[in-house]
Amino acid sequence: MELLIDLETIMADLDILAAYTEAPAPAVTRLIYGEAEVRARAYVRARCLASGLEVREDGLGNLFARWPGREPQLPAVASGSHLDTAPQAGRFAGAVGVVGALEAVRALQRAGFQPRRSLELLVFAGDAPTRFGLGCLAGRALAGLVQAEQLRALQDATGRTLEDWRQAAGLAEPLEQVALAPGHYAAFIELYIEQGPLLATEGEAIGVVRAMAAATTLQLWLHGQHSHAGSTLMLERRDALLAGAEIALAVEAAALATNRPHTVATTSLFQIEPGLVNMIPGHAALTLEVREIAAEPRDHVLRSIDRAVASICARRHVTYDFQMHSSDAPVTCDPGVVEQIVRVCEDLGLPRQFMVSRTYHNSLFMAHLAPTAMIFIPCRYGDSSLTDEQVEPEHILQGIAVLAHSLARLSE
Amino acid sequence: MELLIDLETIMADLDILAAYTEAPAPAVTRLIYGEAEVRARAYVRARCLASGLEVREDGLGNLFARWPGREPQLPAVASGSHLDTAPQAGRFAGAVGVVGALEAVRALQRAGFQPRRSLELLVFAGDAPTRFGLGCLAGRALAGLVQAEQLRALQDATGRTLEDWRQAAGLAEPLEQVALAPGHYAAFIELYIEQGPLLATEGEAIGVVRAMAAATTLQLWLHGQHSHAGSTLMLERRDALLAGAEIALAVEAAALATNRPHTVATTSLFQIEPGLVNMIPGHAALTLEVREIAAEPRDHVLRSIDRAVASICARRHVTYDFQMHSSDAPVTCDPGVVEQIVRVCEDLGLPRQFMVSRTYHNSLFMAHLAPTAMIFIPCRYGDSSLTDEQVEPEHILQGIAVLAHSLARLSE
Repeated sequence: MELLIDLETIMADLDILAAYTEAPAPAVTRLIYGEAEVRARAYVRARCLASGLEVREDGLGNLFARWPGREPQLPAVASGSHLDTAPQAGRFAGAVGVVGALEAVRALQRAGFQPRRSLELLVFAGDAPTRFGLGCLAGRALAGLVQAEQLRALQDATGRTLEDWRQAAGLAEPLEQVALAPGHYAAFIELYIEQGPLLATEGEAIGVVRAMAAATTLQLWLHGQHSHAGSTLMLERRDALLAGAEIALAVEAAALATNRPHTVATTSLFQIEPGLVNMIPGHAALTLEVREIAAEPRDHVLRSIDRAVASICARRHVTYDFQMHSSDAPVTCDPGVVEQIVRVCEDLGLPRQFMVSRTYHNSLFMAHLAPTAMIFIPCRYGDSSLTDEQVEPEHILQGIAVLAHSLARLSE
Repeated sequence: MELLIDLETIMADLDILAAYTEAPAPAVTRLIYGEAEVRARAYVRARCLASGLEVREDGLGNLFARWPGREPQLPAVASGSHLDTAPQAGRFAGAVGVVGALEAVRALQRAGFQPRRSLELLVFAGDAPTRFGLGCLAGRALAGLVQAEQLRALQDATGRTLEDWRQAAGLAEPLEQVALAPGHYAAFIELYIEQGPLLATEGEAIGVVRAMAAATTLQLWLHGQHSHAGSTLMLERRDALLAGAEIALAVEAAALATNRPHTVATTSLFQIEPGLVNMIPGHAALTLEVREIAAEPRDHVLRSIDRAVASICARRHVTYDFQMHSSDAPVTCDPGVVEQIVRVCEDLGLPRQFMVSRTYHNSLFMAHLAPTAMIFIPCRYGDSSLTDEQVEPEHILQGIAVLAHSLARLSE
């Protein structure tokens, strides 16, 4: 099947979406339920209706646009991504996956393709953790990992609840009906820009995601004794900063010791008190995280960190409180979906590279509901500054072509 | 000579001074040129006049109260301390040395003693760095280490200048006349509470300070690369926090490696950016300090730290800016003055212990002007929380007795 991808329309849609922003160009800031996000969603909804799709919106704001198949009672094959963004983000993350899935459907329509299973565009209501402090809100809610009453109670930094925000955004459907049953979809694919340098620097291939890492995030409080930097001799000190410094290095060492390149461990927050010149820091607060594509090696690293914290703190006469802030399950992508994507790349003559996703996507949670995989396209600078991400139109075209053919095959 | 120290009057004066505070009791907050400090200084001035002393105040607010000796043309022997305090300080630091020196003079007067050299009470205008960011302002200015125009230009956090503050406090004498010539005093002794635990826990002796440590303070900025904690593999990172952690530990190790108990080195400030969950810190700012009672071992530690910073940053692909923020000269107390104090302790039958001062006192700078030493009395809890400092009246009495006899001997 020959598919014509309409790159001009795609780039125009990306331009239009980029203009729905709370921040001046080239940055895109589109927080969930903010005016920019509501208007961007309304624009995509109108585009879906114009393409003859059946549109439904749930109480959280997830948008479902269905192209009924020949056997509409069968579980559909779905694809999509998010429209909300982090502050000062770029124009491609999320938007490419939304516009791309819609164009994949239209390209299949134009080619006269008749899917057996329905094809569905899924626009996730929330990806960025910015507004409510919880990332991938949509995927978590669709997979039933966050319940309706937890959703309602989520608050922004000013104390305004998600319930209040969503009603102001015109969303009235019950949150109890957001969760989907496992088996609801026959397959799910998310098209995304790589948020890392590999594809853009190593031959510009299509990335086929085989595993999605997930993080365990820990909060650690260290309690030593603040005292005067002059009058307290070295061996009398209970310096919380130095205990924290050793722990941050132990976190790094524990990740390196696995000899698995996909194990990453990071100390991202490190705050000391009192933070005064002349004063030995008596308290420190650290946020640590360990990401892996498999639970067992991640747990191994966590145990190493546990032991290191206990021994470092004992030696330095520092006490501690350790708390698991969150822990999500890593995912191995569905081999059947991955295989279809690989075959499409081969048929289209496109180089492809197996990848690991180490940032969070709603797909991590969709994998609880359906056989899931992701397609990455190359992106420059997307790993360090979201606003600076650069994606070649050529790669968007290729990504959508691979997506469209994969959806077509999975719908049979 | 038998001296009667009037403990009741001393304790009453300490009570009265403690009531001049910007903070509620038991805390004492008396910032330089604030109403509480101005009123406390006026109270002491009145007490000096009542004892028949000749009072002079310089443009900075230093108060000189002289009991003329039999040979008033000779350089005087001086003693004193400060009345200003850090925020939330206690009632004893500084005040004991002011009230104590005045009572020493009065006790000598009551005993019918006639000094050969004049005896002078010196109340330092500024000790705490709080208002203008520079500690021991009085000592630095008296020793000519800070010039009049630098003094005038000092600003508080709101941008108000020292010049403006001192004029509002009624000080009109030229700042150019604050600095004293070397040789102006024949000797200087400061009576102080120990800001550390040694005397209070090891037999409650009189502390005879033989050396005063001084600090070199360094500012270090580390520049790595912030990037996503998920998408950046361990070996690709340029983590400024981890470089800073290694450096903080190297600072500790450099101090320990001297095997000199009085070498202390501290990382007191440690700030990272961006400080976001999911983000590898790309930048860090550290404040480091090294204190020693001698310049050579301090410089040795500083060179070790220099080398460690260079090697750690090179290995971690982190660049850095290193800046010396300040560096003061350590002081060996005058052996002659120290010997007089020791002999007085022996004559009075008081146990004494040689000490090192590792916090800053104006005496560190008076040593540029005159043979200088310090007398410490035991204090509990003064090292960790200024407000909680506890001093036994008995020790105040002993400290003043030692001071009075020492001044008497030095005045001959």
